Amino acid sequence: MPDSALSIGIDFGGTTVKIAVVYQSHIIDQAPPIATQEFTTRHELIDAMVRTVEDLRGRHPTVTSVGVGMPGFVNFEKGLVYGLTNVPDWNTVPLKSILESKLNLPVMVDNDANCMAIAEWHLGAGRGFQHVIFVSLGTGVGGGVIVNGQMVRGMRHGAGEIGQTSIDYQGRTGHYGNLGALEEYIGNREITSRALEAYAAAGVQKFSENCSPAALTTAAHQGDVIASAIWDEIGRMLATSLMNCCWLLNPQAIVIGGGVARAGELLFRPLKEHLFAQLSGPFVDELAILPAAFGHEAGIIGAAALARESVTAQLV
Amino acid sequence: MPDSALSIGIDFGGTTVKIAVVYQSHIIDQAPPIATQEFTTRHELIDAMVRTVEDLRGRHPTVTSVGVGMPGFVNFEKGLVYGLTNVPDWNTVPLKSILESKLNLPVMVDNDANCMAIAEWHLGAGRGFQHVIFVSLGTGVGGGVIVNGQMVRGMRHGAGEIGQTSIDYQGRTGHYGNLGALEEYIGNREITSRALEAYAAAGVQKFSENCSPAALTTAAHQGDVIASAIWDEIGRMLATSLMNCCWLLNPQAIVIGGGVARAGELLFRPLKEHLFAQLSGPFVDELAILPAAFGHEAGIIGAAALARESVTAQLV
Repeated sequence: MPDSALSIGIDFGGTTVKIAVVYQSHIIDQAPPIATQEFTTRHELIDAMVRTVEDLRGRHPTVTSVGVGMPGFVNFEKGLVYGLTNVPDWNTVPLKSILESKLNLPVMVDNDANCMAIAEWHLGAGRGFQHVIFVSLGTGVGGGVIVNGQMVRGMRHGAGEIGQTSIDYQGRTGHYGNLGALEEYIGNREITSRALEAYAAAGVQKFSENCSPAALTTAAHQGDVIASAIWDEIGRMLATSLMNCCWLLNPQAIVIGGGVARAGELLFRPLKEHLFAQLSGPFVDELAILPAAFGHEAGIIGAAALARESVTAQLV
Repeated sequence: MPDSALSIGIDFGGTTVKIAVVYQSHIIDQAPPIATQEFTTRHELIDAMVRTVEDLRGRHPTVTSVGVGMPGFVNFEKGLVYGLTNVPDWNTVPLKSILESKLNLPVMVDNDANCMAIAEWHLGAGRGFQHVIFVSLGTGVGGGVIVNGQMVRGMRHGAGEIGQTSIDYQGRTGHYGNLGALEEYIGNREITSRALEAYAAAGVQKFSENCSPAALTTAAHQGDVIASAIWDEIGRMLATSLMNCCWLLNPQAIVIGGGVARAGELLFRPLKEHLFAQLSGPFVDELAILPAAFGHEAGIIGAAALARESVTAQLV
């Protein structure tokens, strides 16, 4: 099976399911997104996904596999979705076998952050590295870990949850009772809350829409010192979790994606400064801190790559 | 080469170098320790090590390999010691090639915490697991990480430094400028300082010798509530770093060794409680928290195992 084989990537999000035909890192045909709200049951939604995949296959009959990134806890080996973070009715769903029987194609199912990590590792900023930390910064903070040229999944396929690691053993309570969870400090909403507080403390009235990560990026570029200070603080907190990854795993590359990473150097400069100041020489030498190559499309590209490469037995 | 082959393990410590012939996990002949202080140069110390190894080989001519655990930064592939934490005159020393040319035997050199992790993983409490976190609690806090049935070394052989990971992004400054380094909270000396403060705050005068981890263990067993509270706090702080390892790597087993771990359930009970309370179900299911099987001898046993298994090509 040639490396160039077409595969279909499915990015299952909280509000829409995006499905496309992918060639290497290129989306060559994307179907209209499926709004999850329009379906009352899981079965109807899966049937809609199947119809969309079949439409795409009608136009691209050489498609050989389907990959799905799910926003929740997935048993990668079995293709079993244990549960989704923001979608009810998805408890212990054997999605791989359901889709394979309906599509008669090999299907791979993985966690969405793992799919993004695979996209970056195989086709994007992390290409060629054996030891990679991937982190995705958005409403949630997700991640993926590559060690010795292998995706780390762990005992129960839960590995890579950088957003749940702690930066303060006495800190804010995370979703799982985990004190100091990084996500509670640098998730989208927390950045906005932090900015609102900082402006209020400076006697400046702002509304949430002026304190989104995108708005703070614009403001900082226009010389707003409060916005700049927010980015410095976000960089400092992110540096702590990434420093922990470095001391534990001594990676070659850290790849940072997700909407919040669009702040660019406003985030990367303080991040690198705080990170490098807290590591010894051998950990810093040759360590690359890289922005992700892919944006919104990382999930689809990674899911498609996962499927394509598992068919060609390069992966897994 | 049979698995039962004899090898020599060398545990290079800050004050003594311990050398023994090892059969599987059994020390069958240990030479008198070499006091590092007695030698003014590195060359003299290495020559003394060589003489001791040759003495042991005289009695055990079937020895096929030598493993060395060094207390510092080691390039495992090249057997190069970059530097030792508490011993001067050891900068960029090609110890593997020096010893191999003097002994005419295969020699493996690794970090001492990695050797202990190998002892536990191959022969001790971590035996049979594919994903293991090993942590050694003493004056320093060291560790080793096993993922997908492989030792994790990382880009520059620095991986596994759990004691340098942070539990507080605004916390105490570690040896490398790393804020909140675990070692600064639960290292031997820090436990004693914490206890002295706690007793003083309660109006109880104590001296350092009554506040060693061993003394605090005895006191807690005798019903001393302050000593018990100290162990609870140590367990809580250690739980944070181990929780981070779990979210990142989803291990099957965490093996805890070193002198401080001799506190037993006084440490393990609060550790488990705080750890399990901060992980989601799939991370806790089947997760084993285990005391190390080996004590002071872990370094020698692990170094010998490393050498024996690299000769038989089971490892590396």
